[in-house]
Amino acid sequence: MRFKGELKSVGIVESAGEEEARVRIFPEFCDALKGIDGFSHIIVLYWFHLRDNEKERSVLQVVPRRHTKNVKVGVFACRSPSRPNPVGLCVVESMKVEDCILTVKGLDAFEGSPIIDVKPYIPRGDAVPNAYTPEWISH
Amino acid sequence: MRFKGELKSVGIVESAGEEEARVRIFPEFCDALKGIDGFSHIIVLYWFHLRDNEKERSVLQVVPRRHTKNVKVGVFACRSPSRPNPVGLCVVESMKVEDCILTVKGLDAFEGSPIIDVKPYIPRGDAVPNAYTPEWISH
Repeated sequence: MRFKGELKSVGIVESAGEEEARVRIFPEFCDALKGIDGFSHIIVLYWFHLRDNEKERSVLQVVPRRHTKNVKVGVFACRSPSRPNPVGLCVVESMKVEDCILTVKGLDAFEGSPIIDVKPYIPRGDAVPNAYTPEWISH
Repeated sequence: MRFKGELKSVGIVESAGEEEARVRIFPEFCDALKGIDGFSHIIVLYWFHLRDNEKERSVLQVVPRRHTKNVKVGVFACRSPSRPNPVGLCVVESMKVEDCILTVKGLDAFEGSPIIDVKPYIPRGDAVPNAYTPEWISH
């Protein structure tokens, strides 16, 4: 039998914005933030709640937006919000940590998106500056 | 009412190993891999299935392993498998893509771990080589 996993939200995107977004971690999870202020960047996993329906979750290929080349690619080869498990991932700059609120830069999520997880960004494993990508990505 | 999300596995870690691991994507999701062979690195999200129980999911602070400094930090400030939503994240090198099998380097997951998602690694947003981390990380 296939695996099913259950996610609960640990917070919510309280205000969105590429330049500045606020993520509120729910009170019962605040202790899990201890030490996060020592990191300049964090990884935010969130739920594409507007795509959480059977139709969007059965999409396997898309023409990615923000690229002028018209190629159809698999959703595992792009960052489309339509995907089998609508989990979004953004590497963001941590601007401020105050009580249970993270103020971040670079979060591409809508207001109201449930937060699934927060992880520290550790360049040793997470930064691959010379990773290569297909040509369509750069257009 | 708080959000609950449902995850399904899109694949499984068929063989583990830091140097080489094999990820099998289930046949019904294989079309979603189209184009992934153009990326040198990918992001694998998987489920810490051995920690998927109430006790491990209620852990909020840990003394991270692999670091000699004895500091207790929040699970959102480290990569502990014990966390509210047991989702693991690894940036891996893509060594080979063959049919529905990804052969990768750098996957820190156990054999049998359910695969939640696969995303392309795009340095523009994902690589922050100069991100800083707290002192305990480097010990």
